[in-house]
Amino acid sequence: MTMTPVEQVSGRDAAPDSEFDRGSAVVEREGAPGVYDAELDPGWRIGGGINGGLLLALAARALSRHLGDGTGHVDPVSISGYYLSASRPGPAEVHAETVRGGRTLSTGTARLVQRDEDGSPVERLRVLASYGDLAAAEGEVRTSAAPPLMPPPDQCISTEHAPPQFLAQADLLHRLDLRLDPASVGWALGEPSGEGRIQGWLRLADGRLPDPLMLLLAVDALPPVTFDLGLFGWTPTIELTAHVRARPVPGWLRVVHSTRNLAGGYLEEDAEVWDESGRLVAQSRQLAAVPRPS
Amino acid sequence: MTMTPVEQVSGRDAAPDSEFDRGSAVVEREGAPGVYDAELDPGWRIGGGINGGLLLALAARALSRHLGDGTGHVDPVSISGYYLSASRPGPAEVHAETVRGGRTLSTGTARLVQRDEDGSPVERLRVLASYGDLAAAEGEVRTSAAPPLMPPPDQCISTEHAPPQFLAQADLLHRLDLRLDPASVGWALGEPSGEGRIQGWLRLADGRLPDPLMLLLAVDALPPVTFDLGLFGWTPTIELTAHVRARPVPGWLRVVHSTRNLAGGYLEEDAEVWDESGRLVAQSRQLAAVPRPS
Repeated sequence: MTMTPVEQVSGRDAAPDSEFDRGSAVVEREGAPGVYDAELDPGWRIGGGINGGLLLALAARALSRHLGDGTGHVDPVSISGYYLSASRPGPAEVHAETVRGGRTLSTGTARLVQRDEDGSPVERLRVLASYGDLAAAEGEVRTSAAPPLMPPPDQCISTEHAPPQFLAQADLLHRLDLRLDPASVGWALGEPSGEGRIQGWLRLADGRLPDPLMLLLAVDALPPVTFDLGLFGWTPTIELTAHVRARPVPGWLRVVHSTRNLAGGYLEEDAEVWDESGRLVAQSRQLAAVPRPS
Repeated sequence: MTMTPVEQVSGRDAAPDSEFDRGSAVVEREGAPGVYDAELDPGWRIGGGINGGLLLALAARALSRHLGDGTGHVDPVSISGYYLSASRPGPAEVHAETVRGGRTLSTGTARLVQRDEDGSPVERLRVLASYGDLAAAEGEVRTSAAPPLMPPPDQCISTEHAPPQFLAQADLLHRLDLRLDPASVGWALGEPSGEGRIQGWLRLADGRLPDPLMLLLAVDALPPVTFDLGLFGWTPTIELTAHVRARPVPGWLRVVHSTRNLAGGYLEEDAEVWDESGRLVAQSRQLAAVPRPS
């Protein structure tokens, strides 16, 4: 089947041979409108659970189906995820509901649930989001934001060179082609900059092109910015909100993660994603818990 | 009644003579757990509806009651509001639900609803939030964020000097003591800076002290940053997420609103709020619709 550009960029009928599309696939349950079955693949593990960006993309795919049918509102324009408990590999369900339909935006909510040993549902992630059609987005672009300056990908540091101990806890890195700015990787050599900033080039290892759903993975795919502060360990996301500002063109993404305020046990982690045309395609902020001293 | 500091800062039993506390008051409906009645006061109008920050504070107050009883999780650590339709003065209801209770955080959701002429419910705002106890927050503060530089309040421009045409659309300004940095008000003289930044000093006109709930008003109280881009008109909020990072000390707040990317009909509007001790007490980002040319 030849895909039209719209199908391709919306990710709704994306190539089945992509690890990202398989990992975030949802199947609507027969006779249960709004209920989608999924399988969380261990290949997207990071630290103690499944990567939060992948989970958000998976819930977002279910909402794209649920809100987009008949409206064309297939793109997550603004999406907020509240992380409730650590997900584990295995079956999962997404329960999607429409909150309100409008002319240009439809708002919905979704619950990502897994079952415990007794079969009782345990909620992993609650999502609230407004969807629109970014292909229909018009209007001027007036931006003072500029893409980050960094060396070209072939002069950056591929995470395949990361310490084996780190890679062992980060299965998802094998599915990413992530090239970190050499200025952002002092922490790997025992010399964190203390600036709270990590940036690099990102694309999917299997060549799957970026689209709005993939951007939700991109905003949570880099190592925690706490590494650049010399704080290692697990920084569980409490909440992550992403704004998808445009559909990305094919090619590399540039991703900047930064934090300015670590206080009272929490830090914010901002991400900006730029596409190869130099357009700011996504902005996100998450609130995460500070790693406990080990 | 003499209030204890905890009651005072949590805003749960705040002074009844405060306009903010009256405007964001909620009364639990007898026999209907989780349902709170409220009255939207025309004094908090801005442009075509009730100020979005006041609505968020009102829903947040209901969730503080709903999630905080028995847990002490009274403070909105992270709160996301999706604005669905314009609120109007009159009766409103908040329907609050617990999503998940945890040791340090409780997560809940709330719907702010008004009735149309037929008595049918129309949802205005959907909220998803995680609450904790900021008084219990410990741990180091490592911040690279610095408060904005601006002249002292008595050398800033009080919004009571705003054009009468503007004040007529902004009832809420009478309830704020807002002093804008002279460098931020070129737009009022026909000379917007084009930088997309407005900053100033803020306190409540009636002397009510800042607390976490009041910070939710503070993040949406300044004029839209689009004014500083020379774009006037209504910029409806699609989504606003605020992180309350600490309980503010009594005194003035410094608030910075800024945007970097206006594109495809939307812009992000970031707010940072600093208390008088120089601590970053709240960060927020909203996605808003760009005003249409008039």
